[in-house]
Amino acid sequence: MERMSDENLSNIRHSLAHVLATAVLKYDHEVKIAIGPSTDTGFYYDFEFSEGKTVGEDNLKKLEKEMRNVLKRGFEPEHKEISVDEAKTIFKDQPYKLELIEEIATSGNQITTYTIGDFTDLCEGPHVTNSKEIKPDSFSLSHVAGAYWRGDEKNTMLTRIYGVAFETKEELEKYIELQEEAKKRDHRKLGKELGLFTFSDLVGPGLPLFTPKGTAMRRAIVDKISNIQKEYGYEEVTIPHIAKQDLYETSGHWEKFGDELFKVTGAHDSTFIMKPMNCPHHTQIYAGYPRSYKDLPIRFTETTMVYRDEQAGELLGLSRVRSISQDDGHVFCTPEQIIEESTNIADIIKQFYTSLGMWGVEGSWVSLSVRDPETPEEYIGDEPQWRLAEDSLESVAKSEGLTYKRVEGEAAFYGPKLDFMFKDALGRERQLATIQLDLMMPVRFGLEYTDSNGDKQTPVMIHRAIAGSLERFMSVIIEHFAGNFPLWLSPVQVSILPIGDSHFKYAKKIAGILKAQNIRVELDTSAETLGKKIRNVKLSKTPYFLVIGDEEVTKGEVTLESRDEGKIGSLTTEALTEKLLKEIAGNI
Amino acid sequence: MERMSDENLSNIRHSLAHVLATAVLKYDHEVKIAIGPSTDTGFYYDFEFSEGKTVGEDNLKKLEKEMRNVLKRGFEPEHKEISVDEAKTIFKDQPYKLELIEEIATSGNQITTYTIGDFTDLCEGPHVTNSKEIKPDSFSLSHVAGAYWRGDEKNTMLTRIYGVAFETKEELEKYIELQEEAKKRDHRKLGKELGLFTFSDLVGPGLPLFTPKGTAMRRAIVDKISNIQKEYGYEEVTIPHIAKQDLYETSGHWEKFGDELFKVTGAHDSTFIMKPMNCPHHTQIYAGYPRSYKDLPIRFTETTMVYRDEQAGELLGLSRVRSISQDDGHVFCTPEQIIEESTNIADIIKQFYTSLGMWGVEGSWVSLSVRDPETPEEYIGDEPQWRLAEDSLESVAKSEGLTYKRVEGEAAFYGPKLDFMFKDALGRERQLATIQLDLMMPVRFGLEYTDSNGDKQTPVMIHRAIAGSLERFMSVIIEHFAGNFPLWLSPVQVSILPIGDSHFKYAKKIAGILKAQNIRVELDTSAETLGKKIRNVKLSKTPYFLVIGDEEVTKGEVTLESRDEGKIGSLTTEALTEKLLKEIAGNI
Repeated sequence: MERMSDENLSNIRHSLAHVLATAVLKYDHEVKIAIGPSTDTGFYYDFEFSEGKTVGEDNLKKLEKEMRNVLKRGFEPEHKEISVDEAKTIFKDQPYKLELIEEIATSGNQITTYTIGDFTDLCEGPHVTNSKEIKPDSFSLSHVAGAYWRGDEKNTMLTRIYGVAFETKEELEKYIELQEEAKKRDHRKLGKELGLFTFSDLVGPGLPLFTPKGTAMRRAIVDKISNIQKEYGYEEVTIPHIAKQDLYETSGHWEKFGDELFKVTGAHDSTFIMKPMNCPHHTQIYAGYPRSYKDLPIRFTETTMVYRDEQAGELLGLSRVRSISQDDGHVFCTPEQIIEESTNIADIIKQFYTSLGMWGVEGSWVSLSVRDPETPEEYIGDEPQWRLAEDSLESVAKSEGLTYKRVEGEAAFYGPKLDFMFKDALGRERQLATIQLDLMMPVRFGLEYTDSNGDKQTPVMIHRAIAGSLERFMSVIIEHFAGNFPLWLSPVQVSILPIGDSHFKYAKKIAGILKAQNIRVELDTSAETLGKKIRNVKLSKTPYFLVIGDEEVTKGEVTLESRDEGKIGSLTTEALTEKLLKEIAGNI
Repeated sequence: MERMSDENLSNIRHSLAHVLATAVLKYDHEVKIAIGPSTDTGFYYDFEFSEGKTVGEDNLKKLEKEMRNVLKRGFEPEHKEISVDEAKTIFKDQPYKLELIEEIATSGNQITTYTIGDFTDLCEGPHVTNSKEIKPDSFSLSHVAGAYWRGDEKNTMLTRIYGVAFETKEELEKYIELQEEAKKRDHRKLGKELGLFTFSDLVGPGLPLFTPKGTAMRRAIVDKISNIQKEYGYEEVTIPHIAKQDLYETSGHWEKFGDELFKVTGAHDSTFIMKPMNCPHHTQIYAGYPRSYKDLPIRFTETTMVYRDEQAGELLGLSRVRSISQDDGHVFCTPEQIIEESTNIADIIKQFYTSLGMWGVEGSWVSLSVRDPETPEEYIGDEPQWRLAEDSLESVAKSEGLTYKRVEGEAAFYGPKLDFMFKDALGRERQLATIQLDLMMPVRFGLEYTDSNGDKQTPVMIHRAIAGSLERFMSVIIEHFAGNFPLWLSPVQVSILPIGDSHFKYAKKIAGILKAQNIRVELDTSAETLGKKIRNVKLSKTPYFLVIGDEEVTKGEVTLESRDEGKIGSLTTEALTEKLLKEIAGNI
């Protein structure tokens, strides 16, 4: 996507905001104008229209046309430094501008204007030097929204007109196309259509309920990660979703996030906290038994929900929820084991995202998040510990051949991390996996192991997530694949479509054979026509379907069709099972 | 176990309580006596001892001896009806008795006493007619505990002396033996020894944390049930652990259990309830999509935690916890489908408990819990609905050949149920699985399906649990098996014991082969001697272990030993894998 780093483009967008105001002023001479900056993808301008002169999405084409007239007439933005009095005279009918002038005057800054054609705006610039820099076909007005003056809901609600603008028509078209594609792929829309999850007013906002299909997908993700990490010695544990406040006082979460935590109160003086993280609970399983250096590393893993009291207005489908299923993991190890354990986690991440075809995609990168060297006091732990931790992660990034950037100031206060950034199919950056070293929590909880000399030592803790939160991960991959999931991930892997009643028995037999191999099968025994059944399968984006008719029953075979490759043809059930299992095991 | 249904035995126990008081009065002439009833296994008496005259476990033998002296002297309990004034005179030095006398007087009842030898007690009886009915070797004093007068902590703490008593010496010995066996099998002790779960003061009481081994067992249980019920069309769903109060107002739980629910409060006016049950959430997945009669039955299943605000004093290991993992399931079906669905659930229960060797054990039975015909107003739903529901469950009990009893008044107010009672290895009755019909919840939530005429109908809901709560279930089976779990259930299925360093490589290879077949393996690469390693395996009650030495490496075989059958001998890895997988699949 385009970014504001390109100064020319930013100038074009800013000038277009002024052109928009010029066009709007022609439509409504009495309009009150507020502010009109450039944005990441274009510009906007806020207006208070005169009575009877509102603008909706239907007027946008007309305004665009008038903007093009302004461009055709041409202009060279004229910059002026003026006095407060001059400014007050020029903008005497514009209360929002007058408010801004007062502020600039109070701050002692110079007041400046830019004039485009016959429209003078209070503005610091910069702008294009000539309107010819703006291609009339490289922008469009996109939509209208309400916006409070200065973002404060106590102020007047203004009308904000948004535009998108690029250097060329091609770039504009590509952007609009991507936007339309993003709308089509919106996980909230697709999630509903594919029957993956639902929300209930009675249960509450931000609390998704996963259907059998959504749960099958969650399980496919968790099982995939579990299969990969099993080789590295991870062991599953189980914890309740609440704990006494003491746990979070010890961990430090209470001090840091107290107000944002959900408090749980019972009838018997018992008060608890809904877990916002799993690490404190996991430390208590570690602490439940004496540990020796021979037991380390100990690697706990659990996919379990944590809870965050997000504001209702910030909730968004599965992207932002109140119940967050983390595919969490914690390694307790000696300082000498940091590199090997972090390398193993990087390997797990690599294998998992490779199975999704998302590894090594152009533009993906890893943030080696380290301390801000200017503010060492903001981090706990001493210099040698931090150096060991940061160097360990950097050496992992290097030996694993990761495309990484050292980002100063992005470390957590308890340790450095590797944050994995992926590019989705629409080129959007998504932070998903993470590896975090923690020098603090084992100390706070007094965790120990006995070293080879019989002395007590404090282990290092590594937090890691592979998918991140299952909800956000699902929102990302639903949009990335537009619902066309790889076979291993599909909630239904094969649909079986018997043509008529007489084919049900054979179809059920086939379903049984596939199910016995843990292949997820859906059998359509409805009274619909074959054509309708096929249309339904295509809407549900199932990777494969089998048509079962007289010929298939007679020959004892199946006719296979693929979502991605079309008709494959007739196969024995053995050949079918083998093909599917091979594709599932080989992933993508 | 002995029960109070035997009136003679109850009389013996009651008389022994008086004999105990007689003995105690000889030890402490000034002792204040409270009450002394019979219990399910013996008797107790509460005393307030004079200063310097306390009784602990070490005095019990002396008191027993004195009790036997009383029996040797012989007595025929003498019953008298006396006036309030007479009573107040007799018990003038006994404040607890005086309090009781006042109460009896106020209630207008007759005051009665029983005299044994020279000790007269305020007592309604009944008692043995002659001390010869009591065999001096068929009772013993078991322990001492504190008990508040009338169970109220504002009152004086008294000393309660407990005794156990049976008709014969043999019965007493058998009881004591069972008690000792129960102590050895106590799941809290074994759970710690086997490393299955732990508790943390920081997390809080009643909130168990499951270690990798405990989680492996939980998973084995859940997977076993899941494999069985998959054949019956159950599909897994996923819900968060909180919901708005509205959900429970609609379900009726708020009205019924409001005070006992955990309330969750956030910073943004958001208040939720921690789910005490899963059914309301599951109705909302059902309600998330339009449903047709062709979609029914819909069968949701999920193993997830619910929360109950149990009093701290009532918590007990895994038997009574605050976070309860239910292996929950809900069927939504038409009234015509009740019998088939309930039969299927009964089949699942039968298969699961057969795999544990707990099905069909003498003394196991099923409670067909139906309405109390005397109080029809306490149940919701109309007569035809109830008759259909009760008849359906009874016909399932009959056709499945269950040993069932119709128990009136034990139905839930929303429908009848089948509660499955099992006998454990010590003969204790344990209620575990349940099938409950629900005529209410679908109505309260306005659940619907479209019938074949296009009309809206209300589905029936069936709640079912196979293991019940995983915590309680684990407490039961840990004690039932005394930790000697069947192979499929064992947290570690095979331990591999290389004799020395030179055998590690081969041992690891064997471990890899078994792990690839999802067999749970532990490899002991410690520097311990083989003898120590074998002792450790035996303590951990692992079903099988392999010794790997020079001979095994050379021959490319393993030497297998079984926990239950001793040495089995040398096997190829193929033969080993085959043997283990066969035993796991065939269950017990």
